[in-house]
Amino acid sequence: MDANQLVLQALEEQRATTECVGSWRYLRFPHRTHGIPRGTAVFDGDVIWGYPEIGRILRLEAGIREQFRAPFWVEEKVDGYNVRVFQHRGQVLALTRRGYLCPFTTDRLPDLLPLRIFAEHPDLVLCAEVAGPENPYNESHPPYVTEDVQLFVFDMMRKNDPHFVPHGERLALQQAYGLPSVPHYGRFELRDLERLKALLRWLNAEGREGIVLKEDSPRDQRAKYVTANACLHDIQVTAMSLLQLPPEFYTQRLLRLVLFLDEAELADSPALCAALGEAFIAGLRQALAQYRQHHKVFRTFRCRFRQEANAQLFIQSLRRLLGHPHVRQRRLAREGAWYVLEFDKVLPKETSMLGHLLGGGMVFD
Amino acid sequence: MDANQLVLQALEEQRATTECVGSWRYLRFPHRTHGIPRGTAVFDGDVIWGYPEIGRILRLEAGIREQFRAPFWVEEKVDGYNVRVFQHRGQVLALTRRGYLCPFTTDRLPDLLPLRIFAEHPDLVLCAEVAGPENPYNESHPPYVTEDVQLFVFDMMRKNDPHFVPHGERLALQQAYGLPSVPHYGRFELRDLERLKALLRWLNAEGREGIVLKEDSPRDQRAKYVTANACLHDIQVTAMSLLQLPPEFYTQRLLRLVLFLDEAELADSPALCAALGEAFIAGLRQALAQYRQHHKVFRTFRCRFRQEANAQLFIQSLRRLLGHPHVRQRRLAREGAWYVLEFDKVLPKETSMLGHLLGGGMVFD
Repeated sequence: MDANQLVLQALEEQRATTECVGSWRYLRFPHRTHGIPRGTAVFDGDVIWGYPEIGRILRLEAGIREQFRAPFWVEEKVDGYNVRVFQHRGQVLALTRRGYLCPFTTDRLPDLLPLRIFAEHPDLVLCAEVAGPENPYNESHPPYVTEDVQLFVFDMMRKNDPHFVPHGERLALQQAYGLPSVPHYGRFELRDLERLKALLRWLNAEGREGIVLKEDSPRDQRAKYVTANACLHDIQVTAMSLLQLPPEFYTQRLLRLVLFLDEAELADSPALCAALGEAFIAGLRQALAQYRQHHKVFRTFRCRFRQEANAQLFIQSLRRLLGHPHVRQRRLAREGAWYVLEFDKVLPKETSMLGHLLGGGMVFD
Repeated sequence: MDANQLVLQALEEQRATTECVGSWRYLRFPHRTHGIPRGTAVFDGDVIWGYPEIGRILRLEAGIREQFRAPFWVEEKVDGYNVRVFQHRGQVLALTRRGYLCPFTTDRLPDLLPLRIFAEHPDLVLCAEVAGPENPYNESHPPYVTEDVQLFVFDMMRKNDPHFVPHGERLALQQAYGLPSVPHYGRFELRDLERLKALLRWLNAEGREGIVLKEDSPRDQRAKYVTANACLHDIQVTAMSLLQLPPEFYTQRLLRLVLFLDEAELADSPALCAALGEAFIAGLRQALAQYRQHHKVFRTFRCRFRQEANAQLFIQSLRRLLGHPHVRQRRLAREGAWYVLEFDKVLPKETSMLGHLLGGGMVFD
């Protein structure tokens, strides 16, 4: 069965939900189903295929031996959120990984990349990471994006086609249209392992997240691999959400961290141990302090919009997604060219658990 | 309905399993069902009620305010495994919390307590903790048990009765028969909070696990509360099992640790942070090293038996419980008065996950 027939059939089986964001109305697949990735969206019959899941290796050498049969491209894995950018009815839109139309990213596209490419290639779907301290989703960001957000293209697809545009063709398009890209580190194979390990030690020292390996072959096998410091950093920035996130969020990062150190032949420095222990303790202390002061645990986000209406639409969408009481708008005000939105996401599970425990509640575990 | 009628009905509904250990044959409730605690066992019609679940508080002051309506006894929570000891057909037996007849504990009872009490009180069920470095279940033990194991009585029940023997009566029996007991710290109420907090800071400094609070009232309300150092110690001794244990094992202990420090007004010392970070990293390093050397991750246990046949029975029982390939006998040899058993428990989930990852396997998370 042709890929788009799969989608038609799944639509008939009502596996998609209807989404309305502002004046946009489209269908979204909230779950992976019958070979259709989660986040696949349908705009007036045009299928924007979901970005597929990329497997993770926790060992570089063994992972390359086991997963790759040909040389592979190495690109930086940028610590942001995944979007698909495409043109629909003359407007360029951005979908999140889960297939939600994002009013923030859509608002900011003219600042993030040259949009001319869509005039000449209206069927193109750019897959990109948006990253930076002023983003509404992630608590961490790459060290080299020091303000606002930036966009980094790492793949291209076409409407109604679940495959990626081939590597060479993608690079040519990126170059021709001056698209911002994730850092590219070149083409490697197993015999370049020492060079690759050196790259990873450098990325680790720089506090960068890691790499994505993409096989230079028709099957386009991929894998991701992250640095120890990225794992530590994740724990540092999220430890105050320890009761909100799934517990394996932390155990998986501890595992990745140690497997990285081991393979990179890096010792467990006392500074690393101290930072790791402190991350957990300081994070939970911070959650406690916040609960005491506000009777809630929350994270504050700030981001810039070009248009006030998009900021309002963003808050509305987020409230629909997370539940109205869990999104608190702090401020929406003009600052120079921008409308700056500040808002809190309340952590409901953590808030209620801390409330229960600080109130003397009992747990049976 | 009378409590024992509940059990009869549940037996009719086949909610119990038949257990055979050596020449002993009995019924065991593997799950909590209709008010019957998990681990309840039936020996020839005599019901040995399961030890009920005790709730945990993570805050001392608020927990006392919320959970207790009368003064309460404070006893030490000893870091061992829970057993119920009783006489059946003239022999004294020990059941684990889950209701398994334990050939190790049963073998060692004559060394652990004076058994004369059962001759005069044949319906008595002693609830006790067995703790020490040479035990076959726990990886940690109290600092004051430096070799072999010891037994500490903390409750009494009677056959066919799900209630505890009242506090005063229990203490009188313990004293009359010279039974070893968990440390008793006296009777407290809310206005003694500062004394109680001082006790907990001391227990924490000593590396002891914590306390159990038992209300001095007919309703016998109870709660447990553990120290920060007990949580740290749990993480230290189990971190090499990080992929075997449920991930919330770790997040719950991190939470308890920080809530304890906060209430005890103890600062996060750099030494504590370093120890916590090192616990995770060193534990996983150890698991890695073990996997490399043995292609398995396992924990080694050693314990002493009076009779060789009981050691063999113990290994058989454990193999039935954990699966034959996951229990490896290293050594069973006479040492002075003892038969010393050394064995490994393989961690199957951790072994297969490390094997997968070190072999270059991919995960989708």
